[in-house]
Amino acid sequence: MDFAYDARTEQLREQLTDFLETTIYPAEPVFHEQLANRADPWAVPPIVDELKAAARERGLWNFFLPGEHGAGLTNLQYAPLAELTGRSPELAPVALNCAAPDTGNMEVLAMFGTEQQRKQWLRPLLDGEIRSAFAMTEPDVASSDATNIETRIERDGDEYVINGRKWYISGAMNPNCRIMIVMGKSDPDADTHRQQSMVLVPRDTPGVHIKRGMQLFGFDDSSHGGHAEVEFRDVRVPADNLLSEEGSGFAIAQARLGPGRIHHCMRLIGMAERALELLCRRTTQRVAFGKPIAEQGVVQDWIAEARVRIEQVRLLVLKTAWLMDTVGNRGAHTEIQSIKITTPSTVEWIIDKAIQAHGAGGFSQDFPLAGLWAQARMLRMADGPDEVHKRSLARRELKKYRQQ
Amino acid sequence: MDFAYDARTEQLREQLTDFLETTIYPAEPVFHEQLANRADPWAVPPIVDELKAAARERGLWNFFLPGEHGAGLTNLQYAPLAELTGRSPELAPVALNCAAPDTGNMEVLAMFGTEQQRKQWLRPLLDGEIRSAFAMTEPDVASSDATNIETRIERDGDEYVINGRKWYISGAMNPNCRIMIVMGKSDPDADTHRQQSMVLVPRDTPGVHIKRGMQLFGFDDSSHGGHAEVEFRDVRVPADNLLSEEGSGFAIAQARLGPGRIHHCMRLIGMAERALELLCRRTTQRVAFGKPIAEQGVVQDWIAEARVRIEQVRLLVLKTAWLMDTVGNRGAHTEIQSIKITTPSTVEWIIDKAIQAHGAGGFSQDFPLAGLWAQARMLRMADGPDEVHKRSLARRELKKYRQQ
Amino acid sequence: MDFAYDARTEQLREQLTDFLETTIYPAEPVFHEQLANRADPWAVPPIVDELKAAARERGLWNFFLPGEHGAGLTNLQYAPLAELTGRSPELAPVALNCAAPDTGNMEVLAMFGTEQQRKQWLRPLLDGEIRSAFAMTEPDVASSDATNIETRIERDGDEYVINGRKWYISGAMNPNCRIMIVMGKSDPDADTHRQQSMVLVPRDTPGVHIKRGMQLFGFDDSSHGGHAEVEFRDVRVPADNLLSEEGSGFAIAQARLGPGRIHHCMRLIGMAERALELLCRRTTQRVAFGKPIAEQGVVQDWIAEARVRIEQVRLLVLKTAWLMDTVGNRGAHTEIQSIKITTPSTVEWIIDKAIQAHGAGGFSQDFPLAGLWAQARMLRMADGPDEVHKRSLARRELKKYRQQ
Amino acid sequence: MDFAYDARTEQLREQLTDFLETTIYPAEPVFHEQLANRADPWAVPPIVDELKAAARERGLWNFFLPGEHGAGLTNLQYAPLAELTGRSPELAPVALNCAAPDTGNMEVLAMFGTEQQRKQWLRPLLDGEIRSAFAMTEPDVASSDATNIETRIERDGDEYVINGRKWYISGAMNPNCRIMIVMGKSDPDADTHRQQSMVLVPRDTPGVHIKRGMQLFGFDDSSHGGHAEVEFRDVRVPADNLLSEEGSGFAIAQARLGPGRIHHCMRLIGMAERALELLCRRTTQRVAFGKPIAEQGVVQDWIAEARVRIEQVRLLVLKTAWLMDTVGNRGAHTEIQSIKITTPSTVEWIIDKAIQAHGAGGFSQDFPLAGLWAQARMLRMADGPDEVHKRSLARRELKKYRQQ
Repeated sequence: MDFAYDARTEQLREQLTDFLETTIYPAEPVFHEQLANRADPWAVPPIVDELKAAARERGLWNFFLPGEHGAGLTNLQYAPLAELTGRSPELAPVALNCAAPDTGNMEVLAMFGTEQQRKQWLRPLLDGEIRSAFAMTEPDVASSDATNIETRIERDGDEYVINGRKWYISGAMNPNCRIMIVMGKSDPDADTHRQQSMVLVPRDTPGVHIKRGMQLFGFDDSSHGGHAEVEFRDVRVPADNLLSEEGSGFAIAQARLGPGRIHHCMRLIGMAERALELLCRRTTQRVAFGKPIAEQGVVQDWIAEARVRIEQVRLLVLKTAWLMDTVGNRGAHTEIQSIKITTPSTVEWIIDKAIQAHGAGGFSQDFPLAGLWAQARMLRMADGPDEVHKRSLARRELKKYRQQ
Repeated sequence: MDFAYDARTEQLREQLTDFLETTIYPAEPVFHEQLANRADPWAVPPIVDELKAAARERGLWNFFLPGEHGAGLTNLQYAPLAELTGRSPELAPVALNCAAPDTGNMEVLAMFGTEQQRKQWLRPLLDGEIRSAFAMTEPDVASSDATNIETRIERDGDEYVINGRKWYISGAMNPNCRIMIVMGKSDPDADTHRQQSMVLVPRDTPGVHIKRGMQLFGFDDSSHGGHAEVEFRDVRVPADNLLSEEGSGFAIAQARLGPGRIHHCMRLIGMAERALELLCRRTTQRVAFGKPIAEQGVVQDWIAEARVRIEQVRLLVLKTAWLMDTVGNRGAHTEIQSIKITTPSTVEWIIDKAIQAHGAGGFSQDFPLAGLWAQARMLRMADGPDEVHKRSLARRELKKYRQQ
Repeated sequence: MDFAYDARTEQLREQLTDFLETTIYPAEPVFHEQLANRADPWAVPPIVDELKAAARERGLWNFFLPGEHGAGLTNLQYAPLAELTGRSPELAPVALNCAAPDTGNMEVLAMFGTEQQRKQWLRPLLDGEIRSAFAMTEPDVASSDATNIETRIERDGDEYVINGRKWYISGAMNPNCRIMIVMGKSDPDADTHRQQSMVLVPRDTPGVHIKRGMQLFGFDDSSHGGHAEVEFRDVRVPADNLLSEEGSGFAIAQARLGPGRIHHCMRLIGMAERALELLCRRTTQRVAFGKPIAEQGVVQDWIAEARVRIEQVRLLVLKTAWLMDTVGNRGAHTEIQSIKITTPSTVEWIIDKAIQAHGAGGFSQDFPLAGLWAQARMLRMADGPDEVHKRSLARRELKKYRQQ
Repeated sequence: MDFAYDARTEQLREQLTDFLETTIYPAEPVFHEQLANRADPWAVPPIVDELKAAARERGLWNFFLPGEHGAGLTNLQYAPLAELTGRSPELAPVALNCAAPDTGNMEVLAMFGTEQQRKQWLRPLLDGEIRSAFAMTEPDVASSDATNIETRIERDGDEYVINGRKWYISGAMNPNCRIMIVMGKSDPDADTHRQQSMVLVPRDTPGVHIKRGMQLFGFDDSSHGGHAEVEFRDVRVPADNLLSEEGSGFAIAQARLGPGRIHHCMRLIGMAERALELLCRRTTQRVAFGKPIAEQGVVQDWIAEARVRIEQVRLLVLKTAWLMDTVGNRGAHTEIQSIKITTPSTVEWIIDKAIQAHGAGGFSQDFPLAGLWAQARMLRMADGPDEVHKRSLARRELKKYRQQ
């Protein structure tokens, strides 16, 4: 048992920290100015491409992907880097080509894609030339139960025909989003977890209708392609666009989840660290009732709680990454659920306190806190509400007692 | 001791409930459509004026104001009506001419205004012809400590000259907002609570610069005039625009607080009731893992907790209203702080659960929940963070033990 | 709506407060000394009878019982008096002949007893000459589900024969406990809520075996008869000892619950007030790190939270009492569940904070806090765990939505 | 970074698990029977010595002590073993000669004792022949602030004279307790942290008065020597009984704290695991309202939360142990505070849920839960209340921002 990062991780953390300080943080105000002044409300500010070029030049690129296609890091090595990118969640992940949902989509293509699929879509994604989307959640059913999915993927000769309605399809309105992975039912009569398939749908396929941007609290997240409602009306794609085989949709979704949870959770921890930093900075500078706010006992209680909670949750996520590296997705199942259950709510609590310490400013566009909060809150829901995961985890815990 | 509403209250609740059902709820989608299609991003949709006319015709008007100028209701009689308006917080309060910050401003004018001030500003406010704003919070200091206020109000001959910067001035960008009550320091050398004064500043006075709309978790609240950052640069108003006398600013602010807390808290309770209703409705209709979500034990736990917490907080607010009616603002001091401490956080918790039960939809523009949540969260801060009020309340509680 | 106690209540509160201050509080140390020095570990200290005589002489007697048999107070009038008795829960309730489980048993006898039963058992209970017990909870099943009850009550000629095992039968080891009301199944084949009956069993009936005192955390509560495990082995009582009719056991239990909840909850509130008082007193007197502990922000936060929570929960209990008086047990069903859900956990939280403020002393026999805590914790379970009540309350809340 | 225990740890965990299953758990009922039947209320049941002999024979002995005197394990190696002993906290730690307060006292003697002191007291303690106590907490002051200590240790010729009153001196009433380490003030005029000294006081020294056993929520913990109130009245010991040098008391106390926190926290985690096991077992076996209680959603929520919280807190304690091994007590300062802040409250929460799942039985002597709870609750206070540690931790966190 050893709690120190290895040498490669330490070296990359140093490089990345330097990149954040010299390049990313200074780019934040530029980014927001470019956002404010764009003509197309979904355009991505030009500074993003500059940052991508700068990161790639420094070798800070595709860290997320293990194996030959990516940077060759383990999950455990990437995790602390993902945390650092969470400190500037609008810019750092995308600059390093480590932003969701592309990361999960690239993993899926690397694991399940045919050579042709990889050439056509994985390559440009790895090169940061295009963006992608993942179309799973539906407005009309509780999507946390995969059997509820109503979108249909039906074989018709050499093609698949897709019909259905999805929403909260993140990134789909990014002008550079070219490809979507769509989950739907190919065989409603099959066994519960063999009913679903996934197909690749180029965004410009006829019948794909981007209806509107869904909001996240008042945010539209237009800086990274928003969260689209998409209607698929008789959308036809070649049968070759199927991922893996018919009926494998649920299994692919499961395989996609594990690393994604690690990434999300580590970025959340980076967000919590940034929020705590802002909280400390603000309360040491503002005075109320004769002393800096940081000297109020309740504020100190928040700070101590935040520090202690961050340390705990980070260790759990790191252990989960280590388990994924050593015993695989399935062996890390309980821990992958655990970090989903605990990280968003822990981080949400911390950001809430940072907001409270900022007065009205905490709600405003002048600080990143309200936006960070919305991300953390959203992740208490994404991939299914915490409550579903708790129930599943508890049942596994109870299993051994039932057999006795 | 009697927990039944009196006959007048019951009758008005019935009328108001009818108005909500026949007129307000059906107007909600129209309102949102008009909002989406307006040219001026701060324009108020025309349906609002129609609703005001309809409400006034039915005698549902100015309920908030006790005494001759208003509807003659006590705080205890108005409170349950304010709750009902909270069920549709964007439309019902304004339709009944009971919307903040006008309500507090009208109370101030009724209590402290000269005959001329009342004629010029109170009259059209009571008639719902104009809107108003209240400029207190400043971006550069912790405004919960009134001695921190930096805006200056200086006498110069027959005029007052105002310089300073305010933000989160709600309603100030409503095109119909004509008058602002501005708090500033007239004598920084006076006793702590005699340094501040309030003056009436017409919004079109030279030197009043509306800089931008401040956001509230991504929302700009443009439907009711937003939350403005306002700069006052050598703004000159006649000396007659002073409210009460120099140095009375703090006392006026205190007097303004009591009824405002009741109103805010009762509306919050109405919001909680609406959120609980949405939660119950949604979870009985959606199915996951083989049964309606409402049959999940955790969801039932939320529902029971929500019901029990709502009942408690409502009783406390009603008792506070009764105290204000019977022993006045000062005698109700502890309770006025108590409802500020407990209502927003209680209601925030309930709305959070309703959001969680709605899946991604809970964050979206398709349900009122995200917006309700932002209001509740904001009120945990408005009038000073809860933490300041708790400290003050505790000190009063401790006083008797110190003297022993 | 009126939040003031009526004149009779105010007068009795004054008399009772005086009795507490002049007689009860001074008796507390005497009581503990007598407890420490008794020979019989279940003996009741002689001062208890002195206090009963003193209370009765002052007319402070049987307040709990409405109607002709008792003091003629409404639930709403008695509730604030019950709160006061909670300030000294070991002495005040018993001194006033208002202690559980006698109160519930007397109510049952008054409501359901035959003339003979009332004469034989109600009379001496009302006179404070004997004590009683209520035997419902069983060690082997989840007793919150009444259909689980395994004790059998079988008719055999002119007698009922009782067999079963009960535990946590409070007061059963009080040497003066003479009569037990025993719940059991008389007809396991009847409808769910018609299977149970209640019979009166004198404690000295052959076959009644008091096995041992059950602990509550480390407390044995021997000062008021403990919590017994009792075995009933072929216990025979005359058929006349049946309460009401066969199959009415569940209905009697329900009827017994309502007032009991009010009493328990109001006493809990008195306990919370005493704990808060001790917390304030201690922290103003102890110094750490250069100032009284009461000046620590976190301690002030506790005090404010405690005050605000007490006020809310008291209002809810009072409203419930009022509902019971005006619309009856059934009409107050939701509120009776609500106060059970919220009062014990609220009060437990407050006492926990008072303990924390007392250092190690908070756990000790030198302060009443550890004992008060154990009572509050126990009441989160008694009458069924909170979780059962929440589920039931939620289902009632959901009912209206299901019908739509 | 590596989350696997090393080979030595794994081997010892296996041996210890086997010892628990074959020897310790079966001894629990015997122990309680012997406790119930002893004549001396403070006697230690004879089975304890048998268990010590059995453990020592298996080489399960003195694991806690690093270096030559003990088993030669690192903190990181011992920690998972301490967790296992927490599963049977009344028997396992003492059987392995790893029970507080002896462990801390042995560490102090090993680090600071003279050869003579080590020979006289450390040797028999290491051999499990005698027990010891640590006298720090005082009834009359807030002992979390070491400057408050009032006990005096005054040099008088070749002796030290001790006067003062201590309480909650754990183990002091164990008939086998022979030696006490006493903290007192030797120089009230010295610098804050140089005022205190520690001396060795044999329990049979004239002037040492064991006044009474202090309770812990009704428990007297007589099975391991209770928690004594001790008065020191002109107690004289040779000057050689001083530990280290005059004025070093505070430093010794600090040095004693680090490992003790690890031990306590790991044992608490073992207690949490046992409570969770009992919770799962009980709820799968009991049926209410037609299904096993374990199928209630709220119970599953508890189980999942418990599992997730345990995993997090365990990792934090293990990391702290690793830090102590690699960078020392001082370098691990923040983490040592963190585990004190988070472990007791986390474990208390879990045990509370296990109690709730056990109905009245959870409070009783028939399950270990009430006793486990009292231990966890006590540790939220021991070594100073959590609140003091949080304040200190927050100040360290804030330091970097203050310097900017």
